[in-house]
Amino acid sequence: MADEILGVEENVDNMVHLPRVTIWNEYRHEKTHAEVARVYPDGMHEAIASRLRAEGLEVRTATLDEPEHGLTDAVLAQTDVLIWWGHMAHDDVEDAIVGRVYERVLDGMGLIVLHSGHYSKIFKRLMGTSCSLKWREIGERERIWVVEPGHPIAEGLGEYFEVPRAEMYGERFDVPAPDTLVFVSWFQGGEVFRSGCCYHRGKGKIFYFRPGHETYPIFYQPDVLRVIVNAARWAAPVGGPQVRFGHVPDPLS
Amino acid sequence: MADEILGVEENVDNMVHLPRVTIWNEYRHEKTHAEVARVYPDGMHEAIASRLRAEGLEVRTATLDEPEHGLTDAVLAQTDVLIWWGHMAHDDVEDAIVGRVYERVLDGMGLIVLHSGHYSKIFKRLMGTSCSLKWREIGERERIWVVEPGHPIAEGLGEYFEVPRAEMYGERFDVPAPDTLVFVSWFQGGEVFRSGCCYHRGKGKIFYFRPGHETYPIFYQPDVLRVIVNAARWAAPVGGPQVRFGHVPDPLS
Amino acid sequence: MADEILGVEENVDNMVHLPRVTIWNEYRHEKTHAEVARVYPDGMHEAIASRLRAEGLEVRTATLDEPEHGLTDAVLAQTDVLIWWGHMAHDDVEDAIVGRVYERVLDGMGLIVLHSGHYSKIFKRLMGTSCSLKWREIGERERIWVVEPGHPIAEGLGEYFEVPRAEMYGERFDVPAPDTLVFVSWFQGGEVFRSGCCYHRGKGKIFYFRPGHETYPIFYQPDVLRVIVNAARWAAPVGGPQVRFGHVPDPLS
Amino acid sequence: MADEILGVEENVDNMVHLPRVTIWNEYRHEKTHAEVARVYPDGMHEAIASRLRAEGLEVRTATLDEPEHGLTDAVLAQTDVLIWWGHMAHDDVEDAIVGRVYERVLDGMGLIVLHSGHYSKIFKRLMGTSCSLKWREIGERERIWVVEPGHPIAEGLGEYFEVPRAEMYGERFDVPAPDTLVFVSWFQGGEVFRSGCCYHRGKGKIFYFRPGHETYPIFYQPDVLRVIVNAARWAAPVGGPQVRFGHVPDPLS
Repeated sequence: MADEILGVEENVDNMVHLPRVTIWNEYRHEKTHAEVARVYPDGMHEAIASRLRAEGLEVRTATLDEPEHGLTDAVLAQTDVLIWWGHMAHDDVEDAIVGRVYERVLDGMGLIVLHSGHYSKIFKRLMGTSCSLKWREIGERERIWVVEPGHPIAEGLGEYFEVPRAEMYGERFDVPAPDTLVFVSWFQGGEVFRSGCCYHRGKGKIFYFRPGHETYPIFYQPDVLRVIVNAARWAAPVGGPQVRFGHVPDPLS
Repeated sequence: MADEILGVEENVDNMVHLPRVTIWNEYRHEKTHAEVARVYPDGMHEAIASRLRAEGLEVRTATLDEPEHGLTDAVLAQTDVLIWWGHMAHDDVEDAIVGRVYERVLDGMGLIVLHSGHYSKIFKRLMGTSCSLKWREIGERERIWVVEPGHPIAEGLGEYFEVPRAEMYGERFDVPAPDTLVFVSWFQGGEVFRSGCCYHRGKGKIFYFRPGHETYPIFYQPDVLRVIVNAARWAAPVGGPQVRFGHVPDPLS
Repeated sequence: MADEILGVEENVDNMVHLPRVTIWNEYRHEKTHAEVARVYPDGMHEAIASRLRAEGLEVRTATLDEPEHGLTDAVLAQTDVLIWWGHMAHDDVEDAIVGRVYERVLDGMGLIVLHSGHYSKIFKRLMGTSCSLKWREIGERERIWVVEPGHPIAEGLGEYFEVPRAEMYGERFDVPAPDTLVFVSWFQGGEVFRSGCCYHRGKGKIFYFRPGHETYPIFYQPDVLRVIVNAARWAAPVGGPQVRFGHVPDPLS
Repeated sequence: MADEILGVEENVDNMVHLPRVTIWNEYRHEKTHAEVARVYPDGMHEAIASRLRAEGLEVRTATLDEPEHGLTDAVLAQTDVLIWWGHMAHDDVEDAIVGRVYERVLDGMGLIVLHSGHYSKIFKRLMGTSCSLKWREIGERERIWVVEPGHPIAEGLGEYFEVPRAEMYGERFDVPAPDTLVFVSWFQGGEVFRSGCCYHRGKGKIFYFRPGHETYPIFYQPDVLRVIVNAARWAAPVGGPQVRFGHVPDPLS
């Protein structure tokens, strides 16, 4: 153990690069619906943040009604992975801020999109498709199966985990086929859904994760939080090449 | 219309290249189990063959107990797409015949593997993995969802189709992630399955299709047969480049 | 042969569904640069169109300076596959028309994007990335290798074909990893490029094809035209499921 | 810094899980060809091992002529990632040992296959294809381009790196399309090659990396070694679900 610590001290490359995470929450439901406020008194972002902090990650939060939605250039510059939850106010997110986030993703920032974030401007822009799906809200049971058990986002999970009461999202989910499909959901009412989808876009990595809802206590479930932690690590930027686009000189001149 | 036919006459390239299909069936259950014989009196291969013939395809059949399992060099040379069903006698298929089929697939022959064929020698060899899965046989309901609606194998289908009584196959299905995932199954008992998986291997195309069973009349279902017809067309060889492997000369000499 | 024709007459499903193709060309270079006009006196679109017509395809053309850029609702409704070439005037394409094309692609229309079309609004919107790349224009040699020889877009090709004088496009090409990578280019000056990229987006299929340039006679090369014909067939819509998005009723009620 | 170390001490989950690596080398060329012995006096495995050890990884080596090729059950049980180099004696590797390695990969062990290892029994078995390619040995220049700059295997690299004198490997490379393509090689003589290919197979991760040769000092190049270190970290097992295959009980009984 002493040797391992020594190794860590002497070789910075071997340190865990714990990503700096910013959790963005629309944070409107919690302030306007008593039922949501009861489940998430400090907002969904704080439910997620507290677990990530317990894992040792540096976490900040940002919400829609802050100036610049809390996503200033300075904040984004210090964000390795951005987590996104939105639902009722996607259209209130300013295009300029969406553009800012978009550029950061292409430049390497990770992005984790949760549940109803499938319809956010940023996710639709990065996917290039409608991101539409089927939905139904009867509080049915969801079972989330791991289909790629060697993927780092599946670390620490069993073969499946369940959400006892979920809003159903069903196929066809109009997204590009993921680079890696990690989870597929089964719903009691007869639907399936590609629930854990990994994408490379630009130098950034994106993970769409289906579970999560404003009136169900899903963001307190250990397995759900485990996935979010895993995804934050997976999506963290790597020190890859600095890419230059545009004209290149004649190699012979 | 006359012009179109004329066009077809004058330009062979515009002809539909209807693939020549060989349906291989283990054909043991049908001869030894009365229940199976009642459902498929002429064998599962004939149930499939009759539909493919009705579509205008040139179809032959081959079975395990024929000499060389019916898969002579001559037969394979005239086969564009091979359909494979096996279950109780995978081990009785001779390695030399498996090798022959394998070489033909790499050389461009299409291969459609049905249901319990997931454990056939030829499928395991081409996948490079165990091809294991979960199973349960209680005659539960299966709903097969189209997740890639623009794929030719989904032609003519609705958003899903059902098998009223099915043997369940559940994830984790230990295959490589498909090049294209076309179908995902939902099962009444709580499982999901990647039910329609497309692969390129060598110059050949492979389609794994989950439905089908010896004691259920699944191979009479129009949607199931529709998929098999579509897959046969998709998997047909194209006149791609003749690939040469090995040493190539110095371009400067 | 008579029987085959008979078969075609009697079974419409077995007809070749030759796609109806619209070739969209920016058509500005040809009118303003003498050098371009000399190579393509009737515009690049006509060079491509004449070959597609010779293959029996129904072809129309459309250009930037026509009303609605020639892409009215009526035209798009009768277009199975849209081919796109643009370069100097990407910004002059109206967003409303881009949106119209976008919706048609998600609804199943095929799209083939040629060369400098990588920077078109429609391609960037569908890819969700910058679509940037490296470039150099010294008329160097390009060799386009087939890396997926079983794909229908490789039909009729050798292992590679060459463009004797090409504008170089080099990696990193900032697009999503293609669903299928068919071609990789080698350039004399030391670069490589993913030159033939297949994507499913919505119900539509997209093919990006690198070769082509306004001052080189690349759109007269038989292999280049062979690829465009193959791609038009591959990208043609299939009669897949009519997808419904949104709320679905409670299955139990 | 002290806090970071403290964090590491207190939270084992945040430790870097440096993989335990076994480097397997055929180790015949070095003993029989003076030219090879001059370049790699202690064998190629030691050239690689010394760098990995300098990174803090726990490394052991194994060679063909040891009992059980050095790959006993005990060794494999303590191996997180196996690196494989072979060339002249692929056939001398016993099938039983290949089967043992195969099972370990499906169970989660990472596998990095170098250069001529493309023709090893273990790689061909896991790929399910011929793994054939073109080759030429004139000591030409190779330039290896990063095409997925956000992938962890690209960490620390520039946009490309070069091997000044390389054996050429050219497409068509008869492998399944990789789950992620990280590198594409350019060769002076006119060929391209998919040089960095990532695969999930079973619970294991596989990376094929093209560079490397017995008579060129390629395994001393910092960029090449950087890639091998990165790949070892990427391919390390994760604590994913324990997958159970086979019969599952009726959920209703």
